[in-house]
Amino acid sequence: MHKGLVTDFYQLTMAQGLWRIGAHKTRCVFDRTYRENPFGGGYTVVAGLEHLVDFIENFTYGREELEFLRAQGVFDEAFLAWLADFHFSGDIYAMPEGTIAFPGEVLLRVEAPKAEALLLETGLTMIMNHESLIATKARRLRSVAGDDFLMEFGLRRAQGESAGHYGARATVVGGFNATSNVEAARRFGLSAVGTMAHSWVMSFADELEAFREYVRQYDNATLLVDTYNTLESGVPHAITVFEELRAAGRLPKQYGIRLDSGDLAYLSCRAREMLDAAGFAGAKITASNDIDEHIVQSLKAQGAAIDAWGIGTKIIAANGTPALGGIYKLAAQEEDGRLVPKMKFSDNPEKMTNPGRKDVRRFYHRDTGKMITDVQCLVDEVITAETGYELISHPYSWRRKKLAPNEFYVRNMLRPIYRNGKLVYDLPKLSEIAAYGTEQFERLWPEYTRLDSPEIMEINLSPALAALKEELVLAQLEREKTK
Amino acid sequence: MHKGLVTDFYQLTMAQGLWRIGAHKTRCVFDRTYRENPFGGGYTVVAGLEHLVDFIENFTYGREELEFLRAQGVFDEAFLAWLADFHFSGDIYAMPEGTIAFPGEVLLRVEAPKAEALLLETGLTMIMNHESLIATKARRLRSVAGDDFLMEFGLRRAQGESAGHYGARATVVGGFNATSNVEAARRFGLSAVGTMAHSWVMSFADELEAFREYVRQYDNATLLVDTYNTLESGVPHAITVFEELRAAGRLPKQYGIRLDSGDLAYLSCRAREMLDAAGFAGAKITASNDIDEHIVQSLKAQGAAIDAWGIGTKIIAANGTPALGGIYKLAAQEEDGRLVPKMKFSDNPEKMTNPGRKDVRRFYHRDTGKMITDVQCLVDEVITAETGYELISHPYSWRRKKLAPNEFYVRNMLRPIYRNGKLVYDLPKLSEIAAYGTEQFERLWPEYTRLDSPEIMEINLSPALAALKEELVLAQLEREKTK
Repeated sequence: MHKGLVTDFYQLTMAQGLWRIGAHKTRCVFDRTYRENPFGGGYTVVAGLEHLVDFIENFTYGREELEFLRAQGVFDEAFLAWLADFHFSGDIYAMPEGTIAFPGEVLLRVEAPKAEALLLETGLTMIMNHESLIATKARRLRSVAGDDFLMEFGLRRAQGESAGHYGARATVVGGFNATSNVEAARRFGLSAVGTMAHSWVMSFADELEAFREYVRQYDNATLLVDTYNTLESGVPHAITVFEELRAAGRLPKQYGIRLDSGDLAYLSCRAREMLDAAGFAGAKITASNDIDEHIVQSLKAQGAAIDAWGIGTKIIAANGTPALGGIYKLAAQEEDGRLVPKMKFSDNPEKMTNPGRKDVRRFYHRDTGKMITDVQCLVDEVITAETGYELISHPYSWRRKKLAPNEFYVRNMLRPIYRNGKLVYDLPKLSEIAAYGTEQFERLWPEYTRLDSPEIMEINLSPALAALKEELVLAQLEREKTK
Repeated sequence: MHKGLVTDFYQLTMAQGLWRIGAHKTRCVFDRTYRENPFGGGYTVVAGLEHLVDFIENFTYGREELEFLRAQGVFDEAFLAWLADFHFSGDIYAMPEGTIAFPGEVLLRVEAPKAEALLLETGLTMIMNHESLIATKARRLRSVAGDDFLMEFGLRRAQGESAGHYGARATVVGGFNATSNVEAARRFGLSAVGTMAHSWVMSFADELEAFREYVRQYDNATLLVDTYNTLESGVPHAITVFEELRAAGRLPKQYGIRLDSGDLAYLSCRAREMLDAAGFAGAKITASNDIDEHIVQSLKAQGAAIDAWGIGTKIIAANGTPALGGIYKLAAQEEDGRLVPKMKFSDNPEKMTNPGRKDVRRFYHRDTGKMITDVQCLVDEVITAETGYELISHPYSWRRKKLAPNEFYVRNMLRPIYRNGKLVYDLPKLSEIAAYGTEQFERLWPEYTRLDSPEIMEINLSPALAALKEELVLAQLEREKTK
């Protein structure tokens, strides 16, 4: 499918406006950043890069798309011909999926002819916003769920089909194990899982018969025990069925029950006792019913005996922060053949951007492997552990911290994804992304990972970048004075 | 594309479970209802039916889908062959798009072989949940925006591409005028609109030059005036450009400015004065920047001079209630050749469902045309205005209201959409849906439409339905006693 119209109308009118005056080829650098961590947390998990590559490869215009634009009555035939040949020709650098990121950092840098950078802005921002949001929610759940099995059950509450599918994939980037969404499982190689619904139990004359028929047909049964009465009917019937399986030598390796209503702490502990007393210590208890990370944490604090969690509505629609405020701002622009750093000025210092072509370098403590901080710097800066480094806070430059030589090591967080319109990045397997995501998360000290009111990671600017920013601000003040 | 895997995995294992024992053909009635109005409001606007029809027509299994299922190792070849021939064969009745609905009402009734009803549940619920949510948010915005021009600008913050496209369409169902989303405009015949971005202004040496170039190229220009300083630079430069156009006899019918930051009440009033003083009373003022229905209401209360609104993040991701709690429950099931009413019991009376094949009949006051209430009844009940009607609240049956003969008239809110798997409904044009949505909304007394703490519409059960429900509850209590 041609994705060229998956953009805002003004991107097309502006692109034509630049094209008509020959300014569409002006080389520009755009930074994709975000302003605030979602869900009141201390970090964001980057996701969406694989989708973005697919989007860029299909960002073209076919006959129907051009026909639609022609019918708008504002586009020249010559511009439409330019669109008909459209293919992204620029460079992209990005943090790999699973990377932990912080507000204000460059997650992705586009270096491209201006018209191309504009046309891609809307879709690029949408994809990275959405999938990073869901991956972050998933990581928050994983951070309180220990090694429990986490399943995404939210398709029926997703904001549209692609929210369901890409959302399911993003939960795996953030540490989930499986999904109920079959199409997402097929597309992305996820593990498709499910239990049974109340309608199965209600399809039979009684609960025991419903359970018996299910285990007769399927191994690995997870029996839903709350259709009538969890502790008086559901769990006893499940135990009866497990006893019958054991007697027949057919008890499978994976089996258990699901609780979908009532007080999950109380019910899970009582059910655990009943299962254990009947000799079914191997039976797993799954819980579902409007669960989010706070509920998992709270149930665990009360000692709930839950081994697996089905998380639906609260993750798939990103409950709490339904949109990540991702932005895309001009950082440099070609003028007379050279790239000139640009920044957005604002009366609100929080809204000022950082100028120039930038990298994000992550400092790790050599002994512990834990993350110390990130330094945003200009791409050609060399930062090496051998000489030590002085972190200077920005804009509070009296806050400084000296790192001794070799006390730390440094990694560049942005990887080349496109060069001259060609994909130069080997897209990792989802299992590799998930492992990287876990590794990234484990490099954070726990105070940064609290669900609420976490310690805020302070991100630094290199002295060279801070000086460039100050220079541009002073020049702007000078311009305003002379007006 | 084959949509047969756009479902939860357990729907497929349950469908096969029923199929293996010959119970998959059991005729069932499922009701699609929801429990709570979104956004703290008093109603929900139904949307998504056109999408649902498309989904059902494409709910099939191709080679790849079957291959994926085969690889799961739990499906029989004969069942896969049954899926390969799958096409919905049942009946569907639904409220048309744009209908105002209330919690607990049947918005859609599926009467179908059980396995079919299960397989469709997830996608059907997802589509109606999502689009109704966005249409409701749009109607709330329309309800406070008067006749202002409402534009959807949210694609970059949408939860995935389909959320952007179907969301844009749903805003029109709820009373919006246009969208910036070009692909949505193409697919659904929406009006595509846009202004300019800060990056256009920053593409030129100064703001005045940027504005001049834009109006040189485009009629109907809306100039973005907040890149440098709204009142000291942006508005004066816009006025300069409008004066030049007027002098050249080129002032278009539609022109104006857009405010995207700062205090929109203050800035719009000052900008209005400046435009009027320069003789540009015809210039329209557009506002954007994280706007929702509360901000529109509050700005209008302060006399903001805003003619058009660009609404992005806050509508497209359904800020406030990112998921509508739509549910899908068994209301009747074939037993020994006849359809037996079913209901869900619960210790929580709010979670008990209403049994049987039901309709929703809407009562209107004959003099005013305003809605009085809805009565849920069994499909074969005759309710006529000629004999009058006594509304009996449920479960508080001492709350009654007598309607005199011909004081009111009654309409059935559910229309046949599918019969025996064939589409029997003429899908209305979107413009007709939008007009119907407005008409529906205007039939509500204002107290039901307040943004917050509205009067709650009390929905009644017909005496026959109330009696059936009581009968089933008592029978269940009897069964529990004899256990």
